[in-house]
Amino acid sequence: MYPKSLEKLIESFRILPGVGQKTAERYAMHILDQDLSRVDELSVNLKEAKDKIKECEVCHNLTDQTICDICTDDYRDQSMICVVSNAKEAFSIERMGEYNGLYHVLGGLISTKKGTLPEDLNIESLNNRLKNDVSEVILALNATVEGEITSLYLSKKFGEQCKVSRLAFGLPIGGHLDYADEMTLMKAFEGRNKME
Amino acid sequence: MYPKSLEKLIESFRILPGVGQKTAERYAMHILDQDLSRVDELSVNLKEAKDKIKECEVCHNLTDQTICDICTDDYRDQSMICVVSNAKEAFSIERMGEYNGLYHVLGGLISTKKGTLPEDLNIESLNNRLKNDVSEVILALNATVEGEITSLYLSKKFGEQCKVSRLAFGLPIGGHLDYADEMTLMKAFEGRNKME
Repeated sequence: MYPKSLEKLIESFRILPGVGQKTAERYAMHILDQDLSRVDELSVNLKEAKDKIKECEVCHNLTDQTICDICTDDYRDQSMICVVSNAKEAFSIERMGEYNGLYHVLGGLISTKKGTLPEDLNIESLNNRLKNDVSEVILALNATVEGEITSLYLSKKFGEQCKVSRLAFGLPIGGHLDYADEMTLMKAFEGRNKME
Repeated sequence: MYPKSLEKLIESFRILPGVGQKTAERYAMHILDQDLSRVDELSVNLKEAKDKIKECEVCHNLTDQTICDICTDDYRDQSMICVVSNAKEAFSIERMGEYNGLYHVLGGLISTKKGTLPEDLNIESLNNRLKNDVSEVILALNATVEGEITSLYLSKKFGEQCKVSRLAFGLPIGGHLDYADEMTLMKAFEGRNKME
Protein backbone atom coordinates (compact mmCIF):
# COMPACT_ATOMS: atom_id res chain seq x y z
CA MET A 1 0.00 0.00 0.00
CA TYR A 2 2.77 2.43 0.97
CA PRO A 3 5.55 2.93 -1.59
CA LYS A 4 8.15 0.23 -1.04
CA SER A 5 10.94 2.36 0.43
CA LEU A 6 8.48 3.89 2.89
CA GLU A 7 7.18 0.45 3.83
CA LYS A 8 10.75 -0.68 4.48
CA LEU A 9 11.46 2.34 6.69
CA ILE A 10 8.29 1.69 8.71
CA GLU A 11 9.32 -1.92 9.15
CA SER A 12 12.78 -0.82 10.30
CA PHE A 13 11.42 1.56 12.92
CA ARG A 14 9.65 -1.35 14.54
CA ILE A 15 12.94 -2.64 15.95
CA LEU A 16 12.72 0.22 18.47
CA PRO A 17 11.29 -0.78 21.86
CA GLY A 18 7.58 -0.15 22.29
CA VAL A 19 7.16 1.01 18.70
CA GLY A 20 4.23 -0.65 16.92
CA GLN A 21 2.89 -0.17 13.41
CA LYS A 22 1.11 3.15 14.12
CA THR A 23 4.09 4.80 15.79
CA ALA A 24 6.45 3.46 13.14
CA GLU A 25 4.23 5.02 10.46
CA ARG A 26 4.20 8.32 12.33
CA TYR A 27 7.98 8.29 12.63
CA ALA A 28 8.47 7.43 8.95
CA MET A 29 6.09 10.16 7.80
CA HIS A 30 7.84 12.63 10.04
CA ILE A 31 11.21 11.62 8.60
CA LEU A 32 9.96 12.51 5.11
CA ASP A 33 9.20 16.03 6.34
CA GLN A 34 12.63 16.57 7.89
CA ASP A 35 15.67 18.23 6.33
CA LEU A 36 17.84 15.74 4.48
CA SER A 37 20.83 16.72 6.60
CA ARG A 38 19.13 15.75 9.87
CA VAL A 39 18.01 12.41 8.49
CA ASP A 40 21.51 11.76 7.19
CA GLU A 41 22.81 12.57 10.65
CA LEU A 42 20.49 10.02 12.25
CA SER A 43 21.48 7.46 9.65
CA VAL A 44 25.20 8.02 10.19
CA ASN A 45 24.92 8.21 13.98
CA LEU A 46 23.14 4.87 14.07
CA LYS A 47 26.02 3.20 12.26
CA GLU A 48 28.66 5.05 14.26
CA ALA A 49 27.21 4.31 17.67
CA LYS A 50 26.78 0.65 16.78
CA ASP A 51 30.32 0.60 15.46
CA LYS A 52 32.19 2.47 18.15
CA ILE A 53 30.39 1.80 21.40
CA LYS A 54 31.89 -1.14 23.26
CA GLU A 55 32.03 -2.37 26.83
CA CYS A 56 34.80 -0.94 29.00
CA GLU A 57 37.28 -3.74 29.63
CA VAL A 58 37.41 -2.93 33.34
CA CYS A 59 33.87 -2.01 34.42
CA HIS A 60 31.74 -3.14 31.42
CA ASN A 61 30.16 0.29 31.14
CA LEU A 62 29.57 1.59 27.61
CA THR A 63 32.44 3.50 26.09
CA ASP A 64 34.02 4.38 22.74
CA GLN A 65 37.49 3.67 24.11
CA THR A 66 39.06 0.47 25.44
CA ILE A 67 38.75 1.65 29.02
CA CYS A 68 36.06 4.18 29.88
CA ASP A 69 36.52 7.79 31.00
CA ILE A 70 35.37 7.00 34.52
CA CYS A 71 37.82 4.13 35.06
CA THR A 72 40.74 6.25 33.80
CA ASP A 73 39.81 9.37 35.77
CA ASP A 74 42.42 9.78 38.52
CA TYR A 75 40.28 12.31 40.35
CA ARG A 76 37.64 9.70 41.12
CA ASP A 77 37.66 7.68 44.31
CA GLN A 78 39.24 4.36 43.29
CA SER A 79 38.25 2.72 46.55
CA MET A 80 34.48 2.63 45.88
CA ILE A 81 32.70 0.54 43.27
CA CYS A 82 29.02 1.02 42.61
CA VAL A 83 27.45 -2.13 41.13
CA VAL A 84 24.57 -1.65 38.66
CA SER A 85 22.82 -4.12 36.40
CA ASN A 86 23.13 -2.11 33.18
CA ALA A 87 24.98 0.85 31.74
CA LYS A 88 21.92 3.10 31.66
CA GLU A 89 21.73 2.96 35.45
CA ALA A 90 25.37 4.01 35.76
CA PHE A 91 24.59 7.04 33.60
CA SER A 92 21.56 7.84 35.80
CA ILE A 93 23.76 7.83 38.88
CA GLU A 94 26.34 9.97 37.08
CA ARG A 95 23.61 12.48 36.27
CA MET A 96 22.84 12.78 39.99
CA GLY A 97 26.35 14.24 40.25
CA GLU A 98 27.01 13.18 43.84
CA TYR A 99 28.87 9.91 43.40
CA ASN A 100 32.57 10.10 42.73
CA GLY A 101 33.65 6.46 42.79
CA LEU A 102 33.86 3.81 40.09
CA TYR A 103 31.20 1.54 38.59
CA HIS A 104 30.76 -2.10 37.72
CA VAL A 105 28.06 -3.13 35.26
CA LEU A 106 26.80 -6.67 35.86
CA GLY A 107 25.00 -7.00 32.54
CA GLY A 108 21.78 -8.27 34.13
CA LEU A 109 20.48 -9.74 37.36
CA ILE A 110 20.34 -13.29 38.66
CA SER A 111 16.94 -14.56 37.53
CA THR A 112 15.28 -17.91 37.77
CA LYS A 113 12.64 -16.69 35.32
CA LYS A 114 15.06 -15.71 32.59
CA GLY A 115 17.52 -18.43 33.58
CA THR A 116 20.31 -15.96 34.32
CA LEU A 117 22.94 -17.55 36.56
CA PRO A 118 25.74 -15.78 38.45
CA GLU A 119 28.25 -17.04 35.87
CA ASP A 120 26.30 -15.22 33.11
CA LEU A 121 27.01 -11.89 34.82
CA ASN A 122 30.21 -9.85 35.10
CA ILE A 123 30.85 -11.06 38.63
CA GLU A 124 34.25 -12.72 38.14
CA SER A 125 35.67 -9.47 36.77
CA LEU A 126 34.29 -7.65 39.83
CA ASN A 127 36.05 -10.19 42.00
CA ASN A 128 39.32 -9.42 40.24
CA ARG A 129 38.88 -5.70 40.79
CA LEU A 130 38.42 -6.19 44.53
CA LYS A 131 42.01 -7.44 44.77
CA ASN A 132 43.07 -3.81 44.37
CA ASP A 133 42.42 -1.34 47.19
CA VAL A 134 38.63 -1.34 47.20
CA SER A 135 37.09 -0.55 50.55
CA GLU A 136 33.39 -0.44 49.65
CA VAL A 137 31.08 -2.05 47.13
CA ILE A 138 27.74 -0.21 46.83
CA LEU A 139 24.95 -2.34 45.41
CA ALA A 140 22.58 -0.15 43.38
CA LEU A 141 20.27 -2.84 42.04
CA ASN A 142 16.54 -2.77 41.39
CA ALA A 143 14.22 -3.15 44.38
CA THR A 144 12.73 -6.26 42.77
CA VAL A 145 12.97 -9.96 43.55
CA GLU A 146 15.79 -10.31 41.05
CA GLY A 147 17.60 -7.29 42.42
CA GLU A 148 17.26 -8.67 45.93
CA ILE A 149 18.55 -12.12 45.03
CA THR A 150 21.51 -10.62 43.20
CA SER A 151 22.25 -8.25 46.10
CA LEU A 152 22.17 -11.14 48.57
CA TYR A 153 24.42 -13.24 46.36
CA LEU A 154 26.98 -10.46 45.98
CA SER A 155 26.98 -9.50 49.65
CA LYS A 156 27.56 -13.15 50.63
CA LYS A 157 30.34 -13.50 48.06
CA PHE A 158 32.20 -10.29 48.79
CA GLY A 159 31.12 -9.42 52.34
CA GLU A 160 34.30 -10.77 53.89
CA GLN A 161 36.64 -9.04 51.47
CA CYS A 162 35.25 -5.52 51.88
CA LYS A 163 32.30 -3.48 53.06
CA VAL A 164 29.21 -4.19 50.96
CA SER A 165 26.39 -1.63 51.23
CA ARG A 166 23.18 -1.08 49.33
CA LEU A 167 21.00 1.90 48.49
CA ALA A 168 18.30 2.84 51.02
CA PHE A 169 14.69 1.87 50.48
CA GLY A 170 11.90 4.27 51.33
CA LEU A 171 9.42 6.79 50.06
CA PRO A 172 10.41 8.54 46.86
CA ILE A 173 10.88 12.30 47.29
CA GLY A 174 7.62 14.04 46.42
CA GLY A 175 5.80 10.73 46.90
CA HIS A 176 2.49 10.56 48.72
CA LEU A 177 1.92 7.99 51.43
CA ASP A 178 -1.40 7.15 49.78
CA TYR A 179 0.34 5.94 46.67
CA ALA A 180 3.14 4.01 48.34
CA ASP A 181 2.68 0.24 48.22
CA GLU A 182 2.89 -1.81 51.40
CA MET A 183 6.39 -3.09 50.80
CA THR A 184 7.72 0.43 50.29
CA LEU A 185 5.96 1.62 53.44
CA MET A 186 7.33 -1.29 55.39
CA LYS A 187 10.86 -0.58 54.18
CA ALA A 188 10.41 3.12 54.96
CA PHE A 189 9.37 2.27 58.53
CA GLU A 190 12.23 -0.17 59.01
CA GLY A 191 14.72 2.39 57.77
CA ARG A 192 13.34 5.35 59.71
CA ASN A 193 15.89 7.88 60.94
CA LYS A 194 15.95 10.03 64.05
CA MET A 195 15.23 13.64 63.23
CA GLU A 196 17.84 16.10 64.39
CA MET B 1 28.41 11.89 30.26
CA TYR B 2 27.52 9.26 27.67
CA PRO B 3 30.28 8.36 25.22
CA LYS B 4 30.20 10.86 22.36
CA SER B 5 28.83 8.61 19.62
CA LEU B 6 26.04 7.45 21.94
CA GLU B 7 25.27 11.05 22.87
CA LYS B 8 25.03 11.92 19.17
CA LEU B 9 22.67 9.02 18.48
CA ILE B 10 20.42 10.07 21.39
CA GLU B 11 20.38 13.61 20.06
CA SER B 12 19.47 12.32 16.59
CA PHE B 13 16.55 10.26 17.85
CA ARG B 14 15.03 13.42 19.23
CA ILE B 15 14.04 14.52 15.74
CA LEU B 16 11.28 11.89 15.92
CA PRO B 17 7.87 13.25 16.92
CA GLY B 18 7.04 12.96 20.62
CA VAL B 19 10.48 11.59 21.47
CA GLY B 20 12.08 13.34 24.43
CA GLN B 21 15.39 12.71 26.15
CA LYS B 22 14.25 9.63 28.09
CA THR B 23 12.76 7.84 25.09
CA ALA B 24 15.73 8.79 22.89
CA GLU B 25 18.03 7.23 25.50
CA ARG B 26 15.92 4.10 25.58
CA TYR B 27 15.98 3.83 21.79
CA ALA B 28 19.73 4.38 21.62
CA MET B 29 20.42 1.77 24.32
CA HIS B 30 18.17 -0.66 22.52
CA ILE B 31 20.01 -0.05 19.25
CA LEU B 32 23.28 -1.07 20.91
CA ASP B 33 21.72 -4.42 21.81
CA GLN B 34 20.44 -5.14 18.30
CA ASP B 35 22.13 -7.17 15.56
CA LEU B 36 24.38 -5.00 13.41
CA SER B 37 22.46 -6.07 10.30
CA ARG B 38 19.14 -4.72 11.58
CA VAL B 39 20.68 -1.41 12.59
CA ASP B 40 22.35 -1.16 9.18
CA GLU B 41 18.98 -1.80 7.61
CA LEU B 42 17.38 1.04 9.56
CA SER B 43 20.26 3.32 8.66
CA VAL B 44 20.02 2.48 4.94
CA ASN B 45 16.23 2.60 4.85
CA LEU B 46 16.24 6.08 6.36
CA LYS B 47 18.45 7.36 3.57
CA GLU B 48 16.56 5.47 0.88
CA ALA B 49 13.10 6.59 1.92
CA LYS B 50 14.25 10.18 2.19
CA ASP B 51 15.90 9.85 -1.20
CA LYS B 52 13.24 8.05 -3.18
CA ILE B 53 9.89 9.13 -1.78
CA LYS B 54 8.48 12.08 -3.66
CA GLU B 55 5.07 13.60 -4.25
CA CYS B 56 3.04 12.16 -7.11
CA GLU B 57 2.89 14.80 -9.84
CA VAL B 58 -0.83 14.30 -10.24
CA CYS B 59 -2.33 13.77 -6.79
CA HIS B 60 0.56 14.80 -4.46
CA ASN B 61 0.35 11.49 -2.64
CA LEU B 62 3.68 9.92 -1.60
CA THR B 63 5.29 7.67 -4.18
CA ASP B 64 8.66 6.37 -5.35
CA GLN B 65 7.70 6.95 -8.99
CA THR B 66 6.83 10.13 -10.89
CA ILE B 67 3.13 9.29 -10.85
CA CYS B 68 1.80 7.06 -8.08
CA ASP B 69 0.38 3.55 -8.40
CA ILE B 70 -3.13 4.73 -7.68
CA CYS B 71 -3.16 7.42 -10.37
CA THR B 72 -1.83 4.99 -12.99
CA ASP B 73 -4.19 2.13 -12.03
CA ASP B 74 -6.71 1.77 -14.87
CA TYR B 75 -8.96 -0.41 -12.74
CA ARG B 76 -9.72 2.45 -10.41
CA ASP B 77 -12.70 4.72 -10.84
CA GLN B 78 -11.23 7.81 -12.55
CA SER B 79 -14.42 9.81 -12.00
CA MET B 80 -14.08 10.13 -8.21
CA ILE B 81 -11.47 12.11 -6.33
CA CYS B 82 -11.18 11.85 -2.57
CA VAL B 83 -9.57 14.97 -1.09
CA VAL B 84 -7.42 14.51 2.03
CA SER B 85 -5.11 16.90 3.85
CA ASN B 86 -2.08 14.60 3.99
CA ALA B 87 -0.75 11.37 2.49
CA LYS B 88 -1.18 9.39 5.68
CA GLU B 89 -4.93 9.86 5.49
CA ALA B 90 -5.00 8.56 1.93
CA PHE B 91 -3.23 5.43 3.12
CA SER B 92 -5.74 5.07 5.98
CA ILE B 93 -8.61 5.17 3.49
CA GLU B 94 -6.79 2.68 1.27
CA ARG B 95 -6.48 0.35 4.22
CA MET B 96 -10.26 0.42 4.62
CA GLY B 97 -10.33 -1.27 1.22
CA GLU B 98 -13.73 0.04 0.13
CA TYR B 99 -12.83 3.10 -1.89
CA ASN B 100 -11.82 2.57 -5.48
CA GLY B 101 -11.45 6.12 -6.81
CA LEU B 102 -8.50 8.48 -6.94
CA TYR B 103 -7.04 10.82 -4.31
CA HIS B 104 -5.88 14.37 -4.04
CA VAL B 105 -3.59 15.41 -1.19
CA LEU B 106 -3.96 19.07 -0.23
CA GLY B 107 -0.81 19.26 1.85
CA GLY B 108 -2.56 20.90 4.80
CA LEU B 109 -5.74 22.74 5.69
CA ILE B 110 -6.71 26.39 5.48
CA SER B 111 -5.78 27.81 8.87
CA THR B 112 -5.85 31.29 10.29
CA LYS B 113 -3.80 30.07 13.23
CA LYS B 114 -0.97 28.66 11.13
CA GLY B 115 -1.45 31.27 8.42
CA THR B 116 -2.16 28.67 5.73
CA LEU B 117 -3.99 30.23 2.80
CA PRO B 118 -5.76 28.42 -0.05
CA GLU B 119 -2.87 29.24 -2.37
CA ASP B 120 -0.49 27.36 -0.04
CA LEU B 121 -2.43 24.15 -0.69
CA ASN B 122 -2.60 21.90 -3.76
CA ILE B 123 -5.94 23.36 -4.85
CA GLU B 124 -4.97 24.69 -8.27
CA SER B 125 -3.80 21.24 -9.33
CA LEU B 126 -7.12 19.81 -8.12
CA ASN B 127 -8.89 22.40 -10.25
CA ASN B 128 -6.90 21.22 -13.28
CA ARG B 129 -7.85 17.61 -12.67
CA LEU B 130 -11.54 18.45 -12.58
CA LYS B 131 -11.34 19.42 -16.26
CA ASN B 132 -11.19 15.70 -17.01
CA ASP B 133 -14.28 13.57 -16.48
CA VAL B 134 -14.62 13.84 -12.72
CA SER B 135 -18.16 13.46 -11.44
CA GLU B 136 -17.62 13.58 -7.68
CA VAL B 137 -15.19 15.14 -5.26
CA ILE B 138 -15.36 13.55 -1.82
CA LEU B 139 -14.02 15.76 0.96
CA ALA B 140 -12.42 13.60 3.66
CA LEU B 141 -11.05 16.31 5.91
CA ASN B 142 -10.76 16.47 9.68
CA ALA B 143 -13.90 17.31 11.65
CA THR B 144 -12.13 20.35 13.09
CA VAL B 145 -12.54 24.08 12.53
CA GLU B 146 -9.77 24.00 9.95
CA GLY B 147 -11.25 20.98 8.21
CA GLU B 148 -14.64 22.70 8.14
CA ILE B 149 -13.29 25.92 6.68
CA THR B 150 -11.35 24.05 4.02
CA SER B 151 -14.38 21.89 3.17
CA LEU B 152 -16.57 24.98 2.82
CA TYR B 153 -13.99 26.71 0.65
CA LEU B 154 -13.63 23.72 -1.67
CA SER B 155 -17.36 23.08 -1.96
CA LYS B 156 -17.95 26.74 -2.88
CA LYS B 157 -15.10 26.66 -5.40
CA PHE B 158 -15.95 23.38 -7.12
CA GLY B 159 -19.66 22.91 -6.32
CA GLU B 160 -20.77 24.14 -9.71
CA GLN B 161 -18.32 22.03 -11.70
CA CYS B 162 -19.20 18.69 -10.13
CA LYS B 163 -20.82 16.98 -7.15
CA VAL B 164 -18.95 17.75 -3.94
CA SER B 165 -19.71 15.45 -0.99
CA ARG B 166 -18.17 15.00 2.42
CA LEU B 167 -17.84 12.15 4.88
CA ALA B 168 -20.68 11.64 7.36
CA PHE B 169 -20.39 12.86 10.94
CA GLY B 170 -21.78 10.80 13.80
CA LEU B 171 -21.00 8.38 16.57
CA PRO B 172 -17.90 6.29 16.05
CA ILE B 173 -18.66 2.56 15.81
CA GLY B 174 -18.30 1.04 19.27
CA GLY B 175 -18.63 4.51 20.78
CA HIS B 176 -20.76 5.12 23.86
CA LEU B 177 -23.26 7.95 23.97
CA ASP B 178 -21.87 8.90 27.37
CA TYR B 179 -18.51 9.67 25.89
CA ALA B 180 -19.68 11.53 22.79
CA ASP B 181 -19.22 15.29 22.98
CA GLU B 182 -22.11 17.60 22.29
CA MET B 183 -21.06 18.52 18.77
CA THR B 184 -20.78 14.88 17.76
CA LEU B 185 -24.19 14.12 19.27
CA MET B 186 -25.69 17.10 17.47
CA LYS B 187 -24.22 15.97 14.16
CA ALA B 188 -25.41 12.42 14.80
CA PHE B 189 -28.95 13.69 15.40
CA GLU B 190 -28.89 15.90 12.33
CA GLY B 191 -27.67 13.06 10.18
CA ARG B 192 -30.04 10.41 11.53
CA ASN B 193 -31.23 7.84 9.03
CA LYS B 194 -34.55 6.00 8.78
CA MET B 195 -34.14 2.38 9.82
CA GLU B 196 -35.28 -0.13 7.23
